[in-house]
Amino acid sequence: MTHTSALFTDFYSLTMAQGYWKKKMDTRAVFEMFFRRNPFGGGFSIFAGIGSLLKKLKDYSYSEEDINYLRSLGLFEEAFLGYLKEFHFEGDLWAINEGSAVFPHEPLIRVDGGLIECQIIEGLILNTVNFQSLIATKTARVWLASGKGSVMEFGLRRAQGPDGAVSASRAAYIGGAVGTSNVLAGREFGIPVLGTMAHSWIMAFPSEEESFQAYADIYPDKTIFLIDTYDTLKSGVLNAIKVGKKLAAKGKNFGVRLDSGDIHYLSVEVRKALDAAGFPDAAISVSNDLDESIIQTLTDAKAPINVWGVGTQMVTGGSEAAFPGVYKLAARQNKQGILEAAIKFSDNPEKTTNPGIKQVWRIYDKQGLCIADVLTLEEGEAPDLIEKGKTYSFWHPASDYRHFSHTVEGSAEPLLRKRLEKGKTIGEEPSLYDIRANVRKGLDSLDQSYKRLLNPHIYKVSISSRLRSLKLELIKNYLGDL
Amino acid sequence: MTHTSALFTDFYSLTMAQGYWKKKMDTRAVFEMFFRRNPFGGGFSIFAGIGSLLKKLKDYSYSEEDINYLRSLGLFEEAFLGYLKEFHFEGDLWAINEGSAVFPHEPLIRVDGGLIECQIIEGLILNTVNFQSLIATKTARVWLASGKGSVMEFGLRRAQGPDGAVSASRAAYIGGAVGTSNVLAGREFGIPVLGTMAHSWIMAFPSEEESFQAYADIYPDKTIFLIDTYDTLKSGVLNAIKVGKKLAAKGKNFGVRLDSGDIHYLSVEVRKALDAAGFPDAAISVSNDLDESIIQTLTDAKAPINVWGVGTQMVTGGSEAAFPGVYKLAARQNKQGILEAAIKFSDNPEKTTNPGIKQVWRIYDKQGLCIADVLTLEEGEAPDLIEKGKTYSFWHPASDYRHFSHTVEGSAEPLLRKRLEKGKTIGEEPSLYDIRANVRKGLDSLDQSYKRLLNPHIYKVSISSRLRSLKLELIKNYLGDL
Repeated sequence: MTHTSALFTDFYSLTMAQGYWKKKMDTRAVFEMFFRRNPFGGGFSIFAGIGSLLKKLKDYSYSEEDINYLRSLGLFEEAFLGYLKEFHFEGDLWAINEGSAVFPHEPLIRVDGGLIECQIIEGLILNTVNFQSLIATKTARVWLASGKGSVMEFGLRRAQGPDGAVSASRAAYIGGAVGTSNVLAGREFGIPVLGTMAHSWIMAFPSEEESFQAYADIYPDKTIFLIDTYDTLKSGVLNAIKVGKKLAAKGKNFGVRLDSGDIHYLSVEVRKALDAAGFPDAAISVSNDLDESIIQTLTDAKAPINVWGVGTQMVTGGSEAAFPGVYKLAARQNKQGILEAAIKFSDNPEKTTNPGIKQVWRIYDKQGLCIADVLTLEEGEAPDLIEKGKTYSFWHPASDYRHFSHTVEGSAEPLLRKRLEKGKTIGEEPSLYDIRANVRKGLDSLDQSYKRLLNPHIYKVSISSRLRSLKLELIKNYLGDL
Repeated sequence: MTHTSALFTDFYSLTMAQGYWKKKMDTRAVFEMFFRRNPFGGGFSIFAGIGSLLKKLKDYSYSEEDINYLRSLGLFEEAFLGYLKEFHFEGDLWAINEGSAVFPHEPLIRVDGGLIECQIIEGLILNTVNFQSLIATKTARVWLASGKGSVMEFGLRRAQGPDGAVSASRAAYIGGAVGTSNVLAGREFGIPVLGTMAHSWIMAFPSEEESFQAYADIYPDKTIFLIDTYDTLKSGVLNAIKVGKKLAAKGKNFGVRLDSGDIHYLSVEVRKALDAAGFPDAAISVSNDLDESIIQTLTDAKAPINVWGVGTQMVTGGSEAAFPGVYKLAARQNKQGILEAAIKFSDNPEKTTNPGIKQVWRIYDKQGLCIADVLTLEEGEAPDLIEKGKTYSFWHPASDYRHFSHTVEGSAEPLLRKRLEKGKTIGEEPSLYDIRANVRKGLDSLDQSYKRLLNPHIYKVSISSRLRSLKLELIKNYLGDL
């Protein structure tokens, strides 16, 4: 592991930290990371990046060079720099399992520690989790649009910087991609690396046929011909069949790739040509600035496509380039040493936070489908939710009166699990493969209506009666104060 | 410097490389990087990232661990792995100066080397330059919209991964930001680091006034009060004035920041309150998901804003998350050892490449304003363009007949400069500060019509008569072939 510089933070985290330090305010605080709306107009999000975050957090610290840099700014006292030199995150961290389907307003991460350490790690948490959740969510949408088909990620050249590419490959694999073109991500995470050929390969040979033949000679088990360099139907597919016949004579299969033109028309015509030539198993891969909407129209139209290559849109999020996660104070030790629930009030009820230390319970029906998520106060409420036959009221988090009643029939499970205790890892980090399986399991337990690309049903995230009472009380106190 | 793993490449670059290597095709090739349209519907782009690219290219190589990983894939021969073990880019590289205003269809980078090395570095080039050019272009638009004001970048928490944040800070500074919140980027590049305070600072104290007073005590020279935590006009600005008066008594100034609500209305009211209290110099900073369009409406409405804080939209590109740069073969040594111009044909004339090894000439009028850029063939054409009083015809690159005549009155300069010769750096790398100055100089030499945010005038990028002849000849040969 390389050192993760804790200079990777917003400057104000450090100036505020020195402030808290000087004012002796570094007592216990609890922060929560959550988000306020699903990206891409979708009905769910996929939580990703927590594995990367925990890895980085372990050695998130200040090197001698970092301290010297801070000293050079002329704003920090030597004693505070001495404090930073010893800095390591030593608090507790709770998180929902990576790869879970998650919804607005529920805490995904809870950080419980000293005020200073909680503040310093804010940037690292948001940067890591926001980006990977964006990409895993996008990929899950692409994967669903493809009819749970084979989606390949090849966004390296359009990704936002080298790490933007490598992290995106990780998140895309979690979200449902079968592999990546990014060899470094392959080495780092054990993700399958895949690829075909570029137009420049074909152009580097005297003819298309020779270029295909050369490739088939070298990679007889991995041949996917790119057939649109000159003319897909008049030249490309014919040369693919010609060279493919020689491969077939040796017992080898092949595939083709389309990278331009009308993908629907060409895939139908190419399929016909391949079938007519006796190659019903030759797979058709397509690419060309695809996203979930384009893929959905092609699957709806039953285009005979076997593999979807997706780049830019998947590794950057395309039209939506950031996941809107935030990190807010949930509780704070007061001067008397008592932990008090904190609330951030806003004129916009949606933006008023849910106070206190919370757990998220996911409630299932008898068939194992998700009914709702309920935020409860960590203490005392949990067991009620799983008492069969009992009926409860759950409340809309942003509204005084909207609520629904629930009679327990299926199971309920708490989603936030402790991952760090006093800065030390608890349990084993799941493999990327397991995280990917978790995405699929989570999506299977969601009704189809939440998975529609456009105008999905809104999944219920409610608050318990006790949490509602606390929230209303704090709002009343607050409004009384002004 | 850390090792830059040359596994950071698309897998097909390596499979094709092994193919060229086995077929003994690793002879001279020339590739060009260019783009086909300006992002954000704009009239110009800012070329950025070349400094970072040259730095990475220097030690872009395969470690023992990298080679072992490739071996584990079971697809590469030992002798080829031996070749990769020794791999370093040893070709020539030409580039337009970093920070220059650039336009569609002109080569920004030219790579001249062995076919394999040119292919392997494609991903690194596109990844680095596409992303930084996207962000520098976005920032230049934001900066222009602010009336060339003070723009601060604080996108770390919403950036696409850690490097997405650090590279973005570099590119944003080049494009016009005065500083960043990202402390690591400050250390890496010497960019000024800036920040104010978070809502959590205010919430951590018993009252807003106490939180302001504490900050003013610790940072009397850097005090910017965040005034929207409770109520901007009824509470925040009043407490800022109260604490500000004590600062003023010590000869210190202060500023305020607005982060929510109607920025126009609040900035006007806050300005009135500050002026009335005798603080006409107290600066007003604003933030809240700003982009160039919102900023433009605020500057058009003469909102009294001094500093613009921009995060998500600036470090990700917002609605447009990728710069559409591509990398195409321009010339290739044939079997007879002669370098031949290469063309990639397309049914779409805009997508047919301009063949051959080219230079880009920027033509100025007598006042020093840019008239057009002209692509010429590298050999023989250059001096003509600067012969005063002579008249030339320049041709639309994608059309057979559109052209314009130009009589030389001002100067002309070649934009592509050699930066690497046989892999070795030529000359000094300019400082980030100089690159930033280059952006400003370039924008000053562009007529206002090219800088409009929406529907800008299209800047002319033309091809010389000789290049046009070559292109038409190759198209004719090509169409004859099919």
